[in-house]
Amino acid sequence: MANELLILFLGTILFLCVESKYIAYNTSQGVVPGKLNVHLVAHTHDDVGWLKTVDQYYVGSNNSIQGACVQNVLDSVVQALLADKNRKNGGMCMHDEASTHYIDMIDQTTLGHRFIKEEFGVTPRVGWQIDPFGHSAVQAYLLGAEVGFDSLFFGRIDYQDRAKRKREKSLEVIWQGSKSFGSSSQIFAGAFPENYEPPPGGFYFEVNDVSPVIQDNLDLFDYNVEDRVNDFVTAALSQANITRTNHIMWTMGTDFKYQYAHTWFRQLDKFIHYVNKDGRVNALYSTPSIYTDAKYATNETWPIKTDDYFPYADNANAYWTGYFTSRPAIKRYVRLMSGYYLAARQLEFFSGRMNSGPNTDSLADALAIAQHHDAVTGTEQQHVANDYSKRLAIGYKEAEQLVSSTLACLVESTLPAGCQNPVTMFQQCPLLNISYCPASEVDLSHGKNLVIIVYNSLAWRRNEVIRIPVIDDNVAVHDSNGTEIESQLLPQAEVFEGLRNFYVKAYLGHTPPNTPKYWLAFTVSVPPLGFSTYTVSTAKRTGSTKSSVNTYQSNEKARFEVGQGNLKLTFSTDEETHSNYVNIRSMMDKQVEQKYLYYSGYNGSHQKDPQNSGAYIFRPNGTYFINHERQITRLHKEKEHVEVEFIVGPIPIEDGTGKEVATKISTALSSKKTFYTDSNGRDFIKRIRDFRTDWDLEVNQPIAGNYYPINLGIYIKDNKTEFSVLVDRSVGGSSLEDGQIELMVHRRLLLDDSKGVAEALNETDCVADDCRGLTVQGKFYYRIDPLGEGAKWRRTFGQEIYSPLLLAFSEKDDKDDWMNSHVPTFSGMDSSYTLPDNIAMITLQELDDGAVLLRLAHLYEIGEDKDLSVKTSVELKKLFPEKKIKEVKEMSLSANQERTEMEKKRFAWKVKGSFGDEHVLSRGGPVDQKELAVELAPMEIRTFIIYFDDNDMPNLLSDA
Amino acid sequence: MANELLILFLGTILFLCVESKYIAYNTSQGVVPGKLNVHLVAHTHDDVGWLKTVDQYYVGSNNSIQGACVQNVLDSVVQALLADKNRKNGGMCMHDEASTHYIDMIDQTTLGHRFIKEEFGVTPRVGWQIDPFGHSAVQAYLLGAEVGFDSLFFGRIDYQDRAKRKREKSLEVIWQGSKSFGSSSQIFAGAFPENYEPPPGGFYFEVNDVSPVIQDNLDLFDYNVEDRVNDFVTAALSQANITRTNHIMWTMGTDFKYQYAHTWFRQLDKFIHYVNKDGRVNALYSTPSIYTDAKYATNETWPIKTDDYFPYADNANAYWTGYFTSRPAIKRYVRLMSGYYLAARQLEFFSGRMNSGPNTDSLADALAIAQHHDAVTGTEQQHVANDYSKRLAIGYKEAEQLVSSTLACLVESTLPAGCQNPVTMFQQCPLLNISYCPASEVDLSHGKNLVIIVYNSLAWRRNEVIRIPVIDDNVAVHDSNGTEIESQLLPQAEVFEGLRNFYVKAYLGHTPPNTPKYWLAFTVSVPPLGFSTYTVSTAKRTGSTKSSVNTYQSNEKARFEVGQGNLKLTFSTDEETHSNYVNIRSMMDKQVEQKYLYYSGYNGSHQKDPQNSGAYIFRPNGTYFINHERQITRLHKEKEHVEVEFIVGPIPIEDGTGKEVATKISTALSSKKTFYTDSNGRDFIKRIRDFRTDWDLEVNQPIAGNYYPINLGIYIKDNKTEFSVLVDRSVGGSSLEDGQIELMVHRRLLLDDSKGVAEALNETDCVADDCRGLTVQGKFYYRIDPLGEGAKWRRTFGQEIYSPLLLAFSEKDDKDDWMNSHVPTFSGMDSSYTLPDNIAMITLQELDDGAVLLRLAHLYEIGEDKDLSVKTSVELKKLFPEKKIKEVKEMSLSANQERTEMEKKRFAWKVKGSFGDEHVLSRGGPVDQKELAVELAPMEIRTFIIYFDDNDMPNLLSDA
Repeated sequence: MANELLILFLGTILFLCVESKYIAYNTSQGVVPGKLNVHLVAHTHDDVGWLKTVDQYYVGSNNSIQGACVQNVLDSVVQALLADKNRKNGGMCMHDEASTHYIDMIDQTTLGHRFIKEEFGVTPRVGWQIDPFGHSAVQAYLLGAEVGFDSLFFGRIDYQDRAKRKREKSLEVIWQGSKSFGSSSQIFAGAFPENYEPPPGGFYFEVNDVSPVIQDNLDLFDYNVEDRVNDFVTAALSQANITRTNHIMWTMGTDFKYQYAHTWFRQLDKFIHYVNKDGRVNALYSTPSIYTDAKYATNETWPIKTDDYFPYADNANAYWTGYFTSRPAIKRYVRLMSGYYLAARQLEFFSGRMNSGPNTDSLADALAIAQHHDAVTGTEQQHVANDYSKRLAIGYKEAEQLVSSTLACLVESTLPAGCQNPVTMFQQCPLLNISYCPASEVDLSHGKNLVIIVYNSLAWRRNEVIRIPVIDDNVAVHDSNGTEIESQLLPQAEVFEGLRNFYVKAYLGHTPPNTPKYWLAFTVSVPPLGFSTYTVSTAKRTGSTKSSVNTYQSNEKARFEVGQGNLKLTFSTDEETHSNYVNIRSMMDKQVEQKYLYYSGYNGSHQKDPQNSGAYIFRPNGTYFINHERQITRLHKEKEHVEVEFIVGPIPIEDGTGKEVATKISTALSSKKTFYTDSNGRDFIKRIRDFRTDWDLEVNQPIAGNYYPINLGIYIKDNKTEFSVLVDRSVGGSSLEDGQIELMVHRRLLLDDSKGVAEALNETDCVADDCRGLTVQGKFYYRIDPLGEGAKWRRTFGQEIYSPLLLAFSEKDDKDDWMNSHVPTFSGMDSSYTLPDNIAMITLQELDDGAVLLRLAHLYEIGEDKDLSVKTSVELKKLFPEKKIKEVKEMSLSANQERTEMEKKRFAWKVKGSFGDEHVLSRGGPVDQKELAVELAPMEIRTFIIYFDDNDMPNLLSDA
Repeated sequence: MANELLILFLGTILFLCVESKYIAYNTSQGVVPGKLNVHLVAHTHDDVGWLKTVDQYYVGSNNSIQGACVQNVLDSVVQALLADKNRKNGGMCMHDEASTHYIDMIDQTTLGHRFIKEEFGVTPRVGWQIDPFGHSAVQAYLLGAEVGFDSLFFGRIDYQDRAKRKREKSLEVIWQGSKSFGSSSQIFAGAFPENYEPPPGGFYFEVNDVSPVIQDNLDLFDYNVEDRVNDFVTAALSQANITRTNHIMWTMGTDFKYQYAHTWFRQLDKFIHYVNKDGRVNALYSTPSIYTDAKYATNETWPIKTDDYFPYADNANAYWTGYFTSRPAIKRYVRLMSGYYLAARQLEFFSGRMNSGPNTDSLADALAIAQHHDAVTGTEQQHVANDYSKRLAIGYKEAEQLVSSTLACLVESTLPAGCQNPVTMFQQCPLLNISYCPASEVDLSHGKNLVIIVYNSLAWRRNEVIRIPVIDDNVAVHDSNGTEIESQLLPQAEVFEGLRNFYVKAYLGHTPPNTPKYWLAFTVSVPPLGFSTYTVSTAKRTGSTKSSVNTYQSNEKARFEVGQGNLKLTFSTDEETHSNYVNIRSMMDKQVEQKYLYYSGYNGSHQKDPQNSGAYIFRPNGTYFINHERQITRLHKEKEHVEVEFIVGPIPIEDGTGKEVATKISTALSSKKTFYTDSNGRDFIKRIRDFRTDWDLEVNQPIAGNYYPINLGIYIKDNKTEFSVLVDRSVGGSSLEDGQIELMVHRRLLLDDSKGVAEALNETDCVADDCRGLTVQGKFYYRIDPLGEGAKWRRTFGQEIYSPLLLAFSEKDDKDDWMNSHVPTFSGMDSSYTLPDNIAMITLQELDDGAVLLRLAHLYEIGEDKDLSVKTSVELKKLFPEKKIKEVKEMSLSANQERTEMEKKRFAWKVKGSFGDEHVLSRGGPVDQKELAVELAPMEIRTFIIYFDDNDMPNLLSDA
């Protein structure tokens, strides 16, 4: 067989090479104390989509865009590792840290960690966030310390910060990301000296790379062992100069490398062999874990780092704060799917998980992929963004089927005995955001009634207004008791109609058959983890109101007030951006101004610093106010916040300039340069304008450099008042003036910003040849509270935004008595029970083995709310009224090991200075297996696997 | 271990891929009769130096010039072949066919074929000359049929020829390259439809190649099996349309591919699997041998092809005829080393080959490498040309040491008993061509005598004038008998002095200490395979002449005649390029005009067809005569040819234009557009100006398109006369007008010709910062004979040019009687014996096992000379007077199998038309093991391994 290789050789030549002597390289070297140890960490960074889709990267198609094939990496790395047991390699992918929500991060990490545990029996010990564009506190403490990591490594920190850390040898720190957890949230965190590539000096060894290979065959020309050893030692000493201890790490790889792993390992083998023969420094095959152990073993004392590493700039005019908002529609889609996934898993548990047949797995996969740092970030190419959306849509489709059939089984009362072939057909309306809901837009005039199941995935009872489009203007709503309830018919705003028609055609390929004239709105009341049923009919309305839209001429002077509850807003037509905000309960009476503006995207083409504004980078070039953006401001009678629904786009580009649209809400609060933004929707972090805690900031970009990622909200305060804004998706925002909050809501740019994506962020939607710039529709919410009272709304309403009510529609005949023949209301929990106000259930998921994964999250930080920032208890038994709990195992956050095992292994790093830890009792106590009460301290998230009596104990985790 | 691979995976994503189902591809398909069979021939074309040196290609260094690493290819191909026994791959390198001499081609092929036999036990059956720029008759019949090949494949033939062959389905032919051997020289020869790359349609699968990979995983997006199968079938049917039989070959690879072989085989596996499932065509892993067998099995009748495939043009203005002359200095160096290697091996045999210690192996290797189609061709980058020269110099150095010590042993008469530490120290003068010979430039005034050993590697006695530089003007020469012989002191021409000083400084780093004023010339007489000894002393000269150089003013009118023998040339100063050529013996009396001219190199930069003249391409843009080139014309008394030594260069480029210098020798012969050029120094092939035998030539380049490679010589004739020119190296030449012959002797070009080398052919030599365009010094020889009498000179003198006398120098004291204390003359053959005039010994080489490799070559074609084109016998016993021959095995030309075995296997192809074979008895008969007389028919080369009584029979070949 091997003969065939040579059967056609005509020449004499190649055997000169074949004959060269065999050299056995000694690659077994470990750490050598007293020497400078160069930890060679072979790694490949395999983006889960970026310039190509994740599948294209895997199979190596579409190489004209980027030469990359992960299949090559896997195939060849396995071969190379088998060939020498001393070799090591990491293949890594990683979620984003700015535009991701902590619940999504936990889900994604859990999926990965449990896969690794099941397939390889391995529990990861290290976070490897080398590429995300800035680093969050939640990543460090929650997705770091709380998943049992001993260390966390990353490549991208602010260039000014990096320079200072190099000088002070503080690239490596102990990062304490949580105020509430204190020292128990500490993790060793290493920022790399430059990036995540090999050090300068020629150490790239991919097929066809140009670094000089080690030529150690004396029979050939150009023998260069000494030269290359010198190069190695020089690079090592240079890095040692900026590093504490005598351990340095070399990240030997970069994006999609190791396609033929042998090319790297051949050289690494030689370097280890010859460098150690030389003896000046010690080179070894290492991993981040080995490196971490070596660092720990030195007993060094480390500088402390708190808060986070946002925003990230790699250059004076290159603030990576544009991507906080880039692709706002995808960002919203991801968030919408996250909430749906949470709800669908609950219903999947109620009906019993099916491994084949509709389940939530493909939605789980799609969401996990969407968390990638070139997915939800908006920094991927357009065709890749389309791919992420497609995956989400496919995942949704399957989950939607599961949800519909589970709801059908629940209303038919076949559960928990089993759910097979329910009769009731439920429809859902994923395009409700663009007023398109065929299920509700039905003709009810001939004795048809609309049945609406309203599912609440929160573990609290919930009263909320829902809105559905209807074509009839004479409808009544009845609740589960058959009682007619108050409802309101709101005329469809004209601006929505064009949007609806265009996007339904774009997404579904046809124009909607009807044009519903009204939104039907009514308040629903739904039990925790449960549903209520409402019917809509043409029965005579009583006690319902029909609304109309007031239009006014711009020259008409008028004042009008909205708000039927405690909160009232008064607008005046001559200054339409201003309103008077009055809450008669809390006695808040403030002037609020809300405006839209755009930043002109910087065009660096002929400039000294050619940096453009683009998908990653926000580099504004002038601020311009706009007065024609469309929005709807809503107040709900029982709520005390303002809901603003905006429609932004298409952003005009006829002038050849990209634009980034923001809204600015101004108050008179004396916020003293200070504002607060959430970290991945969890902890709030104090931000000070034009200031960084870790270094003396040189301000180059006074706008972009003050932008931060927002996933939950942003607030400011003065000595009396808090002003909070909550968001429906990940956006960038800031407070650029005292009293003011701004959110960037949409971006359309015509130039690439030279950070790799090689495409302008110019999103369009097309119906045949009619391509229009993307229109983005979204909501934000604001509220003014007395100082100290805002957290309650931010936390509670934040959960409601993440977990919107899920609506399912069916039809019944007028004569059918649905409420008596079906289960009209349901709660998955004990009907007497609800979770405390400060606790949320963020995961309820049946695992493959029938056990249940449960996560409970305390929603408040220490000191955040005077009543709710307290240790609180949850009764597990009440959560599973129909089941008998056999055992509860507390797990690490990613559920791949028992919590007690994880705690036992935790490293206790030495920290510089007297950084006292005042919160000694920052955690809930152990769970008594009889009482089954779970205590949660502020910000605590506890993860359990719960085994019921009808389940076998699983193999995987029983031996942990 | 494999766990390390994944220990750092944080994500969820890659396992989507890892989980994909395992598909077992069926790759075992063989030929299927009745279907179109697509033979997939996986191959990598690994140039033995081109843009990088051979070692750089091997280890993969200098990748900034070209990403290429043969070590990757070998490592990964072996793995891939081991993984599936159905897979096959050829790694190929190949000598050039235009600028190579047949003796070098034989040596190179023998080295390779014997290596393959020894290492792998394999005898190649196929010639794979896919890249050389045109194809020679000698390659087809001598390095093809005569090495036992059944077929020969190549990529490059004239674009007009290719177009016609496609139309006529005659890309595949039976090539009969020898007039003398007739049908026994036939070989199946396939020109590829385009080149040696995969067919159009996206079938490149190197790492990062952009062809669509087969995506057959239904769990991923972009499944494309049907599309790719259709692409395959389309490409196959397209090729089938221009091919006879239902077998087509796909060359699945190209330059330096298969660096990670798995990337190709993964796709080829899938293609074979899915295409055969589809069933429209049959795809199989194949080799050129399997393909050849399949072709043969069809019993098809094939068109015949004679002569060769020169010149090659791939475009109307892209005639690859420049490289026939490119890098004339390297071409000469290679030829000089070839002759030296032939001589050194003889001496190595006489002294007994040493496996360690000085031997000819490294010169053999260097010469083999130098035959590469981007080496002696001159189409490599400058740094690579330097590398080839360095290798030759290193090989020479070792061979020189062997030659000196063997000669010392021979003169000390310690052989054949053994040659250890001889006392005599011999020096040689490799820079004699630039008049630099420290060994002869010694001060003889103080009783020192110069001893000169003159070794003749031809198997004929030889009388010839030798010339050495001396510093004394009062020297006498004595022969082996102590008799003073006639000698001549010729003043050193001034033009040589500057050249000598510059180049000695450039090559050796110092200026020569002496400036010898004279060439000492005298006639030596040397026995076959032997030497004579001459001494030079300051003893009083008798019967010697001292010459002077005549200079004349250009306005001075004069005639002068040179020539002391039969041949006389008369020049007149008023028309210096003309001479009158008179041979008083043969009665030839002709006017001869010799001129230099240059062609302006075409600059296509702003032209419609941007093709430049360059290293490969000859595209002249105007012809200009020069009258200042320097040359010396010599006539030797006992010879009847004119020797012209020219010095051309530095070619001026101050005008920004490259130039290509030719010399044109014109006579009044009525040659009727016809001329004859040798094929690799062996057969002469008839050429007709502006005409091709195989198609109706469209003439686009009337100069470049009529150029042919010349290694031995070129001649024209009319009905009375022959005019022959012989060359000292490979050059390009033509006869562009009747009666005229031209040779291109030097080229200096300022533009790259876009055929890949990416460098202008602008050779310079530097002494410190003084860089000058390369000066080329060389010789050609011409002679005019009566019709039918030229061959004798061409053949005999051609051997003398190839095998110049080898000079070794020593010193002795005036008082030492060297001739009596040393062996003054020697012949390796029986002293009574000499080879017949029509037979040359082209190889005499001791093999590793002590046996001897002997090649005897008949020098005449059938009908070439009325006396010498006859079957002739050689007595082997007389060649080895000191040894007892135990056995003589006749071998294939490349000595890797017994001739009888080879003949048994030979395919008998069916040929179209009644191409009768008139030369039935075109071969010598078998060798009687007693008589040991070897018969050689015209053009026959017979190869023997001869075992002597003191040798063991080798294992390798006894089982053949």
